[in-house]
Order: sequence, then C-alpha cells, then structure tokens
Amino acid sequence: MAMRRRLTSEPCAVVIFGASGDLTSRKLVPALHNLQAEGLMPKETAIVGTSRTKFTDKQFGSRLRKTVTEHSRIKPTDASWSTFGRDVYYVPGDATGDELYQDLKAKLETIDEERGTRGNRVWYMSTLPQFFSTIAQNIGKAGLCDTGGWQRLVVEKPFGSDLESARELNASLNAYFPEKQVFRIDHYLGKETVQNLLVFRFANAIFEPIWNRRYINQVQITVAETLGVEERTEFYEQTGALRDVAQNHLLQLLALVAMEPPVAWDADAIRDQKVQVLKAVRRWTPSEIGGVVSRGQYDGYERVPGVHSHSSTETFVAIKALIDNWRWAGVPFYLRTGKRLPSATTEIAIEFQRVPHLLFAKTAVEELEPNVLIIRIQPDEGISMTFGTKVPGPEVNVRTVDMEFDYETGFGSGTPEAYERLLLDCMLGDATLFARSDEIEQAWEIVDPIQRHWGQGGRPGPYRRGSWGPPSADDLVRGDGRRWREPSR
Amino acid sequence: MAMRRRLTSEPCAVVIFGASGDLTSRKLVPALHNLQAEGLMPKETAIVGTSRTKFTDKQFGSRLRKTVTEHSRIKPTDASWSTFGRDVYYVPGDATGDELYQDLKAKLETIDEERGTRGNRVWYMSTLPQFFSTIAQNIGKAGLCDTGGWQRLVVEKPFGSDLESARELNASLNAYFPEKQVFRIDHYLGKETVQNLLVFRFANAIFEPIWNRRYINQVQITVAETLGVEERTEFYEQTGALRDVAQNHLLQLLALVAMEPPVAWDADAIRDQKVQVLKAVRRWTPSEIGGVVSRGQYDGYERVPGVHSHSSTETFVAIKALIDNWRWAGVPFYLRTGKRLPSATTEIAIEFQRVPHLLFAKTAVEELEPNVLIIRIQPDEGISMTFGTKVPGPEVNVRTVDMEFDYETGFGSGTPEAYERLLLDCMLGDATLFARSDEIEQAWEIVDPIQRHWGQGGRPGPYRRGSWGPPSADDLVRGDGRRWREPSR
Repeated sequence: MAMRRRLTSEPCAVVIFGASGDLTSRKLVPALHNLQAEGLMPKETAIVGTSRTKFTDKQFGSRLRKTVTEHSRIKPTDASWSTFGRDVYYVPGDATGDELYQDLKAKLETIDEERGTRGNRVWYMSTLPQFFSTIAQNIGKAGLCDTGGWQRLVVEKPFGSDLESARELNASLNAYFPEKQVFRIDHYLGKETVQNLLVFRFANAIFEPIWNRRYINQVQITVAETLGVEERTEFYEQTGALRDVAQNHLLQLLALVAMEPPVAWDADAIRDQKVQVLKAVRRWTPSEIGGVVSRGQYDGYERVPGVHSHSSTETFVAIKALIDNWRWAGVPFYLRTGKRLPSATTEIAIEFQRVPHLLFAKTAVEELEPNVLIIRIQPDEGISMTFGTKVPGPEVNVRTVDMEFDYETGFGSGTPEAYERLLLDCMLGDATLFARSDEIEQAWEIVDPIQRHWGQGGRPGPYRRGSWGPPSADDLVRGDGRRWREPSR
Repeated sequence: MAMRRRLTSEPCAVVIFGASGDLTSRKLVPALHNLQAEGLMPKETAIVGTSRTKFTDKQFGSRLRKTVTEHSRIKPTDASWSTFGRDVYYVPGDATGDELYQDLKAKLETIDEERGTRGNRVWYMSTLPQFFSTIAQNIGKAGLCDTGGWQRLVVEKPFGSDLESARELNASLNAYFPEKQVFRIDHYLGKETVQNLLVFRFANAIFEPIWNRRYINQVQITVAETLGVEERTEFYEQTGALRDVAQNHLLQLLALVAMEPPVAWDADAIRDQKVQVLKAVRRWTPSEIGGVVSRGQYDGYERVPGVHSHSSTETFVAIKALIDNWRWAGVPFYLRTGKRLPSATTEIAIEFQRVPHLLFAKTAVEELEPNVLIIRIQPDEGISMTFGTKVPGPEVNVRTVDMEFDYETGFGSGTPEAYERLLLDCMLGDATLFARSDEIEQAWEIVDPIQRHWGQGGRPGPYRRGSWGPPSADDLVRGDGRRWREPSR
C-alpha cells in the first residue's frame, strides 16, 4: 500500500548559510549527494555555499568531496563526483552585511540562466541561531525572493530560547517568508521510526482501540546520550537539556504518540492534531514544578573547559507530563533526556494496564508484567511488544517474552538518513515533518514555566556519569508508584 | 509468575489396555518413561500392560525398551532402564472376558503390596473404541475399583460416533466411574501452544479488549495433514474427517479461542466456559448445510487398499461456524481439516478488522492488509502478529511485516510432548485439559446434523492431492467475500 507521490523535486538552488560549518559537512552535503546519487534530485539542482571563509567554487567543491567521503553512507567516486562537483558553487561574504546578498543575487541569476533552476530557492540556515532573523530579513530586503520561483526557508533549532523570543523569531521570519515557506527542521522527525509511529498507529486497527487512558497505564519517552557536552559548551551553557532536547524532540515524540488521528496524511492535518495535544499538556504552576520535574547535572560538568565554574545549566531533565483531554486524562507521560547517561538510546515505551483479573493465582496479579510496546528510534530502529506466555512444562508459569520487529532485519540496511528525507521533503514542498510556528510556541509554553522557576534559584541535582540521572528523577516516578524502565538495548 | 502445584503424583499403577498396540509403543510408554526420567513420577509407580498377545513381564519390558528408544525424546540408557524396566508388568488376556480381570486383580494387589501403589489406578483405554464401554464395565464389575485408592479412567477418542452413541458411552463409563474420574484425552489439548492460548488471552491485558466482534473480522482454524489414510482405513472408513478431527480438535480449538474468561484456572471453571461457547455455536439446518459445509475426498482415496470402491467417506471438511452470543455474533469461524493437503500445519489465524479510515490514500483501505494474529500449534509452535509498517524511504509505503515469537527460540527445544503433560495431569487428578461429557455431547450436537445430511446422499467433492481441498471449500469463504489464508509456514 503506498501513497505515491512525485519523488523528484523541481530544479532549484539550495543556498546554505554557514557552509563552512560542521552541519554542512556532516549532514547537509552528504544528504544532497545521496539524493542526487539515488536520482531523487533533478540534474539542474545547484548547491550554493556561503560563509565568511574565502573559498573559490573549486576549493569549496574539493572540501565537500572530502567531507562526503568521510560522512556519507554512499561514497563518491571520480565518476559520481564529476557530476555532483559541478553542481557546487560558493559565494563568500558576511551574512550580516548587504554586499553578500548582491553577490548571491548575481550568482543565482547566472545559475538560473545556465542551469535552469527557475528562480526556485531553498534557503538553508546552517548558522548560529542568532543570525536566522537577520539573514532572513536580508534575503527579503535584497529582493532575493522576487524571482518568480518558489522560496523555502529552512531553519535549524533552537527556535528561540523561550516563548517570547520564539514569537519574535517567527514574526521576523514571516516578514518575508509566509509560514508556508518556513521549514523548521527537527531531525528526529526525519527518522524512519518516528514516521513509522504514525503508520503503526493508523495503519493497524488493533492499536487505536486500546490507545487511551482505559488501557494505557503510562508512557515513558527517553532520549539518552552517553556523550558529554564536548565542544558545544558555549551554546550548551545558554541552553541546557530542557531547551536543547525536551522542548523539541521530547515534546514532538509525545505529540506523535498522543495525537488524535488526523483527517489526512498532510502537513496541516497532522500538525493541527499535534498542536491540539500540546495545547492539552498541563502547564505546571511554580509550586508544582518541584514534584514533577527533575533537573540534573553530571559530575564534572563544571570542570569542562568553557563551562562556568558554578554553572547551574542542567545536563539532565525529567518531566512528568499530563495531557488533559478525554483520551489521556490521568495517564502520565514521563519524559527524560540527558548527557552522560548509561546508553545512547531513544525510545518510547508504552505500558499497558495490568490484567484486571488473573486466573492463575490470586496473589500473582502484581507479579505478572504488563504488556509494553517499545518503539526504538535509535539505535536499532524497531518495534517490540512484550507479552506474557506460558513457559513449556507442566506448571502454568507465565514468562514475559518479546515479539520483535527490527527495521534492519525487515528491510535491510541503508535506511536513508533523516536529513535526506527532510531535504527532499523541503524541495518537494512537503512540510509534514517540519514544525509549524504554533507547535513551537505551544512547546515553549510548556517549557517556559519550568525554565523561569529554575531561574529563581536552586541548582540541578548532581548525578554520576553513566547513571540514569539524579535521585530526583527516580523520586518523580516513585511518587506515582512507578519506576523508570531500563531501555531495551 | 507461576501457579505452583505439586508436580509429583501419588504412587499408582497405570494399567494399559491395548498394550501391544501402536499408541502404547509410540506415545504412552515413551511419555511415562520421560516423566520418570524427569523425576515427575514417584518411584513406586507401576506400569501394567495387558492385551491378548502373550508376553511375560520381561518380554514386554524388552519390547518397550525398543519402542522407547525409537520414539522417545529422551533415550533410555542401561542405567535408566534398570529402573524403568523394573516398573513394567504384563498381564495377557481377553478384555471382553472375566478371567483377565481376576488375573489383573491378583497382579495389582501384589504390586500394591510390593511397591506401595496404595490401590491408586490409572485405567488407560488404548484399545479400539468399541471396547471402551465393556472394559470399563468389566473393571467395575470385577471390583477392581474397590481398592480404597483413587481410580481414573482414561479414554481416547473417538468418544462415540454421534450424539446418541456418545451419550450411551458416557452413561456406561459413568456407571462405575463417576464423571470426575473420567479423563477423555484429546492430545491437542496437551500441546503447549494450545495451553498458551489461554495464557496469551488472559495474561495479556491488550488482547481481551479487542477480542470480540467489534475488532475481529474472522477466525480460521486449520488442521492440515499431508499424509493420506495409510493403514487406518477400517477405522477411517467408518469415521471420516468430520468425526475424526472436526468434532474434537477443531471444535476444541474454537472453544479455547472463543470462550469467555473463566473465573479460575481449574478444570470445571474452564470447561464450563467451553461448554457455553459450544452451546452458542449455531446448529445448521439441513437446508443450510450445503452453503456452510464443504466435503471433500482426495483423488485416489478409493484406490487405497481397504477403502470401499465407491466410498463416500470424506477426507476433507470445512465448516463455517457462527457463535450466537454477544461477543461473537456475526464473526465467522472457518474450520477446515483434511488429509493430503499441501502442508502438515495446525494453526489458528485471527484476523482483525480493517482500519476504519486510512490516512494515506483514499483508495488504499482495501489494499492494506488487516492485522492477523497467528497461533501456530504445529510445527514450530509459536505466535506471530502481522502489522503494517512504513517501508523506509521518502514515500509513505506500508508493508505488512511479522512480529514473531517462536517457542523453540524463546525457550529452547525439548518441549515435553502432549502425552507427557496429559498423563502427568491425569496422575495428579487435574482434568483441566481433558474433555468433559457435556463438551463432547455439545460437539456432537454441532456435528450430527451435518453427518445426517450427508447420509442422505451426495458425495464428497474430489480434490487433487496436495491442494487445499475441493472447490466447495473456496466457495464457502468466497460467498462471504473472503479467502482462506495460506498457513504461515
């Protein structure tokens, strides 16, 4: 069963701001290379890098070849690069000044003429977030959108640092780029399992009837990293786990698990429902926050070069979220994310209610594990369901076993990377997997009270590197008579 | 989670009528041997064979050693046989006469005295069915039950050949053996997956809410053999697939799938609910039978030595069963069994409803496969669930994949055989997995009208060996807009 769609975009120029940066080398250009290698991008497509570093087209090209060789799942050959290398251009300059935009305009007009990119543009903001607004305004003011072709502006997170700044950013992007032209990337949404979550829920009739408060006891969403802050200290010190991960990835995953069925598989139908869920997430009051949010910092964080010596930046956060609607009233969604945790795992665990009555022995209801559906997002994308089964033998022993579906076993390796999917979607004009301004603002409404509360004092609880966060994280679930699940792998 | 129970029975003598027969060699004695090898039978236990063939204890013993070596999953060694061999006795004689019972009485009294079997008896009818009643009466009349110990009578199917004869048989068995002492073996019920069916349904909270007409579209139960009649022609000619398999195995499996939750895991609670389901199975009227029952005979059956040249015995039967109760109203249970089918497979396929609304493309609801839960009983006991998942890639393609749980992978091999479980249960006095007289009678009430209708004329439809039965089997489901599932392995 397929939703067929045109898979090749119209020709366009992809203009990357921050082209000398890490994201460009590691993700964007490899993704564009692979899309071209797989014939998903028309041959007219041009890639135009810009940053303050001075490169010629050729220098930029050979730099990219190196990074593609290093980071791409499909390695370039001399033959393949003879095509892709010719699609690469570079315009050096200062994105906060005017001159760059004149240079870009000239270059892009030439490209339109020579390659037939028809004035279509993807403007990709791969810079520090403080420049998003300026660059978008400069593109607009310089008339670079007045080409007769379509314009799409891709923005990387963070989308602001609180509700107010997010609103300002949205307003400023929307000044020259109407909301339909803004593509806010959360690369988690480009992952296969995340998309599969919707297919799984809405292409299988057996889950929807039990996907509610009556049958689901709790949901735990974990985004765990084993790494520490490493080189991103300047950014991280201003951000912390709450804003870096919880506001976007965790709440996006929550929205996909909890949303009502959309009326159609299209960008606005899906995002409308996600917004409805986010609106229903209870906003905690300052007096409640202590009991429902855990804030942690791993031992030694303060000694990382670049980190303030009494930094109160959290490297771990756990939140109990409640969704006040008919479907979810009373079902806790426990969200947690952190650095220096025991495993690099992202997964959603949906735990069903216990059986109401146990036949086998009156005292054993408590011993029998409830069914858990686990959606593993990384690593080893897959889905598993635990269920109770009889252990062979003359006793009626029930043991919990797993039914497994593993993406790689099921479909082979070579799953496209999130950025490939998202860049292609953007070129095709499909915004389903991108965050809309109202989603972003709702998410900040949820997160802001926590951030504000923390700002008034207190410090994150220390936790041992390689542990699952501070004691307050355990208290948070233990207060509800629950415990955190050990992630499945 | 376990229902602990005492696993070692009290000492007893197991008296096997028909001890020179095939079932004794292939199943009963290997099962007893393995129970002993695994320490599940007290060392006092004695095995007493009887049949018309003249053996000494010793001859019978060495015969058994040969058959155990050949047929048992645990092979006897000199050391193990030095124990088991001493537990084996033999009393030759004619089970329809009086003398045998006097001889048995003497032998059993000696055994009680020497071994301490305390007058406890398992009377195992491994003879032709026409002798069940006579033997039970003879045991009773000769006073062999008046030992002060417990008495259990094990009867192999067929339990009569129609409702009337089943009632007579039950009455005649019950004359000396009250219903609680009668253990009717359907070896299917001793299979792990069959027992697991109940655990699966009632130890997992996610299935019960969708285990009804609202969410289940149809159930297909297949008991397929690749073999033909081979040597059992005399029996088979009088029986046919309807009475040989449908009346017992197929209806037992139906009852386990469809029953309401019992109030407890005990023999009467479970059998009470099975009887309720069988009572609710619609009795077809003669005018309906043509449309809901398919009757087949494989090509060449009539040329099998021992088969009548114009035999109208069916080697295949398919039945559409409807269960007229709140849970199942309108959900067809399609049952089929036959010889010379393409694979030797027993499985239950529970097909859920299609999704009510498909997001992905308006026309594709029909294309998307519904979820199917498959309970494989043999070979490769296991459970699998098909579900729709997203094929990796930029299109929203949904493909049906399997979540698998395989018994052997999950628990290792060496699963005890059905007869081991059932013999142990019998010695323990646990009748949960044995059919009660009212179950048997209900099953005959369902089957009798079909048999009677066939008796009035018509012939089974021929089918090619290695095919899934005659065209009428396909018509039966096609009339409902359905088709038979290909068994999963």
